[in-house]
Amino acid sequence: MVKFSFMPRGKIFFELYEESAVNMVKTAELMKDMVDSWENIEQKVEQIDEYEHIGDNVTHKIIALLHRTFVTPFDQEDMALLAHSLDDIVDLIHAAAVAMLIYKIDTPKEGAKELAGIIVTATKEVAVALKQLRNQPKLKQVLEHCIEINRLENAADTVFRNAMAELFDNCSNTADIIKWREILEHLESATDRCEDVANVLEGVALKHA
Amino acid sequence: MVKFSFMPRGKIFFELYEESAVNMVKTAELMKDMVDSWENIEQKVEQIDEYEHIGDNVTHKIIALLHRTFVTPFDQEDMALLAHSLDDIVDLIHAAAVAMLIYKIDTPKEGAKELAGIIVTATKEVAVALKQLRNQPKLKQVLEHCIEINRLENAADTVFRNAMAELFDNCSNTADIIKWREILEHLESATDRCEDVANVLEGVALKHA
Amino acid sequence: MVKFSFMPRGKIFFELYEESAVNMVKTAELMKDMVDSWENIEQKVEQIDEYEHIGDNVTHKIIALLHRTFVTPFDQEDMALLAHSLDDIVDLIHAAAVAMLIYKIDTPKEGAKELAGIIVTATKEVAVALKQLRNQPKLKQVLEHCIEINRLENAADTVFRNAMAELFDNCSNTADIIKWREILEHLESATDRCEDVANVLEGVALKHA
Repeated sequence: MVKFSFMPRGKIFFELYEESAVNMVKTAELMKDMVDSWENIEQKVEQIDEYEHIGDNVTHKIIALLHRTFVTPFDQEDMALLAHSLDDIVDLIHAAAVAMLIYKIDTPKEGAKELAGIIVTATKEVAVALKQLRNQPKLKQVLEHCIEINRLENAADTVFRNAMAELFDNCSNTADIIKWREILEHLESATDRCEDVANVLEGVALKHA
Repeated sequence: MVKFSFMPRGKIFFELYEESAVNMVKTAELMKDMVDSWENIEQKVEQIDEYEHIGDNVTHKIIALLHRTFVTPFDQEDMALLAHSLDDIVDLIHAAAVAMLIYKIDTPKEGAKELAGIIVTATKEVAVALKQLRNQPKLKQVLEHCIEINRLENAADTVFRNAMAELFDNCSNTADIIKWREILEHLESATDRCEDVANVLEGVALKHA
Repeated sequence: MVKFSFMPRGKIFFELYEESAVNMVKTAELMKDMVDSWENIEQKVEQIDEYEHIGDNVTHKIIALLHRTFVTPFDQEDMALLAHSLDDIVDLIHAAAVAMLIYKIDTPKEGAKELAGIIVTATKEVAVALKQLRNQPKLKQVLEHCIEINRLENAADTVFRNAMAELFDNCSNTADIIKWREILEHLESATDRCEDVANVLEGVALKHA
């Protein structure tokens, strides 16, 4: 395997990915804090909005650098997919947050809190796996994190389905069902994007192992 | 065109794809049987759940093998897309089945039965086209199957739209509209993924013709 | 940068892309005219249906040519993505138009008119950026159009969210909320696909600048 650390361009890429990952974990944590405490919603959504812009900027930096670099640490395409998937995770948390605000949600459903918790765990796994990609000896650990991310995505699926079933059972207001379906779907999709990142990382790990 | 059959690695790939395709057709047939007879739902959903796991496993095997193989029968990327699309078809049928169970559906709508029928036909076309990819002389036939799959996807679109219009016209319970919209959407999306497979096969056929 | 104009095959590609782009702008303009005037709906949806078929045909031509061409003006994959994204824009406008007809919409919501206006502007930007791709000296302008398309996509996001919030606030009929959500989502997604095209164009511009 190419020792990434010996390549100066590679170093810049990994630093940008880690910047993106740190921003993603912060966004996830703020979402969890928001649904758990359900206080100062507007202010927190504004902060998530700012994280979304930061995510856009670092993604743009990665893509621009990618297009100017001839030899990249791994597949150009995998690198672009990685950058976009990290950004998508932030975008989906952001979309859920904005929907909660704009749809004037009273209190967050239990399912939303559970999903926010899963997203925090999954994004942290993504961040750690990403960091280990730099070092050849830890590639096996990359794969272990990928398996854990897949497990979390399946768990999120189940939470989503149960939350939807519960909504249909106990919610007399159909408009609320539509609102919550959208919010829960955004949150569940965030874990799908974590799995996309895991798939890229798994591929890179296998290819260079 | 490279004679696939002369390549031992290629042979393993095609066997895995066919394993995935057989599992996909079985899933489609069980879904059709389920909506047609509407009996032993829980047991059938459990069986579809098992097919979903089998699909995951064979997909993982293909991707892992792909990442360890230097010379592949056709484009690495097309091969990965093919594996994931076959898996997506099973996942979508599975999602529709689970939704029917969890949303406590009374009786399946006519549109769901029609879509299940289209999915059986489309997955069978996919399986046959995939098989023919192994043999150079039958490439023209691959294209014919692709055209048929495209036709079936368009037919599914129409069934979906009409079923939705019918729901809005005749369903007084909005929660039911939301439930059915989700189920029908999953089924319709399964035919979209069949078209994705067809597009990959078409590309491979044209490139190697 | 390779001078595209010196490559005869490249010329055919660019002509096909421009054919696709012209058809896309026409579809967008007819949608805007339809929601603005709200007259002769059936006839206009039929015309959009025809545009959809034209889009399918030119896309198929591009993909087929792509698979038969060894040296392409830029990345095979980017070229395929470009063709499919142009087609997706038409498909989404088409889906919105068909939904309006089949769901027996009375009068178009203000949000739909705004989105149709944004789509017309965005598709025109796409068409101009695509044209400039042919000429090396104008690559900087490609990037400017891409920034504008990104801005329009964000604007469409905001219109969509506000339209949804307004629906929940003022619409007593939940079935109407579901119908409009689908229509507005198709329209908003059309601007997402414009952004996909912009991302491809940006990549090509950066790579060849």
